[in-house]
Amino acid sequence: MRAAVLRVAGDVLTEQGFAHLDLADIARRAEVGKTTVHRRWGPVAGPVADLLADMAEQSLPREETGSALGDLRANAALVRRTLADPRQGALFCAVIAAATCDERTAQALQRFYEVRVAEWAPCVEEAVARGELPKGTDAETVVRAVSAPLHHQLLTTGVVPDAPDAERAARAAHAAAAAGVYTG
Amino acid sequence: MRAAVLRVAGDVLTEQGFAHLDLADIARRAEVGKTTVHRRWGPVAGPVADLLADMAEQSLPREETGSALGDLRANAALVRRTLADPRQGALFCAVIAAATCDERTAQALQRFYEVRVAEWAPCVEEAVARGELPKGTDAETVVRAVSAPLHHQLLTTGVVPDAPDAERAARAAHAAAAAGVYTG
Repeated sequence: MRAAVLRVAGDVLTEQGFAHLDLADIARRAEVGKTTVHRRWGPVAGPVADLLADMAEQSLPREETGSALGDLRANAALVRRTLADPRQGALFCAVIAAATCDERTAQALQRFYEVRVAEWAPCVEEAVARGELPKGTDAETVVRAVSAPLHHQLLTTGVVPDAPDAERAARAAHAAAAAGVYTG
Repeated sequence: MRAAVLRVAGDVLTEQGFAHLDLADIARRAEVGKTTVHRRWGPVAGPVADLLADMAEQSLPREETGSALGDLRANAALVRRTLADPRQGALFCAVIAAATCDERTAQALQRFYEVRVAEWAPCVEEAVARGELPKGTDAETVVRAVSAPLHHQLLTTGVVPDAPDAERAARAAHAAAAAGVYTG
């Protein structure tokens, strides 16, 4: 039941955005009783929060290329592919929107990024241990710095980031880290 | 009439977010006829798009400090103050959310950032002319790189950026620009 509801919630968010999410509509499309859906998820944002928890559970392990720049490139490429995917990209926008309206979704979104950032942070920690980046570099801030311009571009210009955008995001985060911007 | 409706639209977005924006409610609070509001702004997102146009018109001139890092710091500080302001910060989140659901708002948001970025881009162009940053540096990408981590932090962690966050955003954009990441 949970899987069917989450799939339909993802479909509706992808097709129509958060403003059109309706619990009764989700129940109908998932062929699940409306009362059951309401009892389990309560307010409309419930399935969105649960969808984020599901995405965090299923998130992929990081890549390891042997260098900080290589790893950050791999991370940027993954973020770009996610945003460029019609379903994942629309879902990203809808989830950001839902998080601005609903505290439970906002917490689920924060948790989702914490999981993703924690997965990739070791690539920076290992680079610091190898002497490739300055001691005291905050690994999580570097990983977030890779995603930020790519997410920002999609949200504020509507243009899906391309491969050069991802390359630039990785190189910018690496250059700033190498310059000691993210220490202390 | 326009001023009253825009003020109320801003109030509702600030207090309750985009999901609760209702044209009839705006008309009532602005003490304007519902038909008039509907005729002028049509779908619910209309006042949001118009609010963004109004914000673009009223946006402040850039600061000029004499150095690229100083100017980018001034820009980061302005972005931070905007996001930290209870009304402006809530409005930012609501407008991002509205833009994900509505094409007209998305275009107004893009236009708003184009105006803001164009206002600040000369600080990078002048630094290139002075030889402070590499030739061919894309000024608009640098300016957007300052805002991106600050906006991203508020949207994905719910934590309002503080002064050290703004300082880090300015220094990161400057270091990446100095390293030639934003050329060609």
